[in-house]
Amino acid sequence: MPPWVVVGPGDDAAVIEPERGALEVLTTDTLVEGIHFDRRFVPPDAIGHRALAVNLSDLAAMGARPRAALLSLVLPGTLELSALDGILDGLLALAGSHRVTLVGGNITRSPGPLVIDVTATGSVSRRRVLRRSSARPGDLVYVTGHVGDAAAGLRQLQAGDAPEAVLAERYLRPQPRVRAGLVLAGNRVASSCIDLSDGLADGLRQIARASNVGIKVDSSALPISGACRDWHHRSGGDLLETVFGGGDDYELLFTVKSAYRKRLRAVTRQLGDLPITPIGVVTKERDLVVSGANGMRALPTGFEHFR
Amino acid sequence: MPPWVVVGPGDDAAVIEPERGALEVLTTDTLVEGIHFDRRFVPPDAIGHRALAVNLSDLAAMGARPRAALLSLVLPGTLELSALDGILDGLLALAGSHRVTLVGGNITRSPGPLVIDVTATGSVSRRRVLRRSSARPGDLVYVTGHVGDAAAGLRQLQAGDAPEAVLAERYLRPQPRVRAGLVLAGNRVASSCIDLSDGLADGLRQIARASNVGIKVDSSALPISGACRDWHHRSGGDLLETVFGGGDDYELLFTVKSAYRKRLRAVTRQLGDLPITPIGVVTKERDLVVSGANGMRALPTGFEHFR
Repeated sequence: MPPWVVVGPGDDAAVIEPERGALEVLTTDTLVEGIHFDRRFVPPDAIGHRALAVNLSDLAAMGARPRAALLSLVLPGTLELSALDGILDGLLALAGSHRVTLVGGNITRSPGPLVIDVTATGSVSRRRVLRRSSARPGDLVYVTGHVGDAAAGLRQLQAGDAPEAVLAERYLRPQPRVRAGLVLAGNRVASSCIDLSDGLADGLRQIARASNVGIKVDSSALPISGACRDWHHRSGGDLLETVFGGGDDYELLFTVKSAYRKRLRAVTRQLGDLPITPIGVVTKERDLVVSGANGMRALPTGFEHFR
Repeated sequence: MPPWVVVGPGDDAAVIEPERGALEVLTTDTLVEGIHFDRRFVPPDAIGHRALAVNLSDLAAMGARPRAALLSLVLPGTLELSALDGILDGLLALAGSHRVTLVGGNITRSPGPLVIDVTATGSVSRRRVLRRSSARPGDLVYVTGHVGDAAAGLRQLQAGDAPEAVLAERYLRPQPRVRAGLVLAGNRVASSCIDLSDGLADGLRQIARASNVGIKVDSSALPISGACRDWHHRSGGDLLETVFGGGDDYELLFTVKSAYRKRLRAVTRQLGDLPITPIGVVTKERDLVVSGANGMRALPTGFEHFR
């Protein structure tokens, strides 16, 4: 990689330095109908929203301020014009709320499934870039918001149940934690960070692998919403499987040096209503362990294949 | 558009100014199997090459120096691993020859056709940006290289004829005119510029529309290769239809103030073997006219739908 590549492939987004001191963060993600969403229960505006959200979440996980986006749409010939309008409406509404400008793109017709690819760019200063690879033993592990809601919402939608609005909404129109990423980066409080679009188990694994460390998670500390708990209680589903294995929670998972706990309180105050919950600790032994009421066990590998 | 958007949607690429004086050029393009290429006669490496080439050609048409690319691949479940390797090889070979670094991307499996989406970024200084919208009456119209070769090559490949290597190669592995774009921008000699990925007729129309001018093209001046002429002679095809309507020639179409003809000679010298051919003149009357042995006629609208 040339010297102006600050962060190359393998992180949430790439970081380049076109001019000295001016870092540009680039990320691209593709949603494919039938793989990443089902048009039977995901309305067009939610498709557009989610396609941008997954990219903004990647920028948030780098500590970047999003700026511009490019959109590539591959549309099945059968798609109605109103659906196209809905996709654009959903994308532009989320873009507007984060002051992101759509600067270009293209639309292609295809015989295949709907494909929506978004590239987003943003900026971050060099000292503030949040990476996956810099967690150190002894750091505390935190997560923003709640985990498991989006996966529970998806399961309800898939089952054709009348979904609970709060859970379905968390799946359909997730809020990328752009502000949390900016505040964490601005306070230089996080030693590593990743977004949870691929699930909590995957996020823990990625940070541990990239940082050459292990993580011990206290399952009793996980921030699980009442709605998510209730639904699992009623439906008899495996709550921890949803929470660890379910994706689509666009929350941030990050680590903080234990000496920075005070500094983190300033972050928590700045973020107001968004919960910031300690869920574990980084260990020197390179194992991923979950502790709970029944003792300790390894983080099951199956969790990352739930999706 | 916010003030840092120097060129928004509607040009070959977007130009943003993240920091004062440092312009970033962004472009994204999608190739869809069955729409933009046919895997029966386009080998994997050519698919990868063309997916990057179409984006580098957009950057060239802005006068930008390419720097980084992102790749999104949507692969049919049936695609062999060797084909994926071939696509990456073709893309990386072209990237290497233009010092472009692949900084990120993602791969998705899908039940649909192969979709390859590339985003490319580059840089240009503000005074050097080549736009479509600044051609003025009296400017001379030029084109790089030869026009029609790629379309002739595609027709041969489609017909299952043993294709002539030079024509087929121009379709399969077109060379984006990155250096020509840089030299034109560096000498500040072009008043407008566009790439010919969508064909000569489309390029003329786009410049005329964006600049509020007309263009008169001298069809006897068009740089048509001997191989292209020979094949049309033998096959009885309509040469001008191929030349005006055929796409996939990654050449640059640009306009030059007539007072800058001397300055253009310096550009021509710098570009060595690449022909730079005057093919017409920009007019105040907003018509697109082709003059030839049989007099003048309007540029047929059908040409832009050839593809």
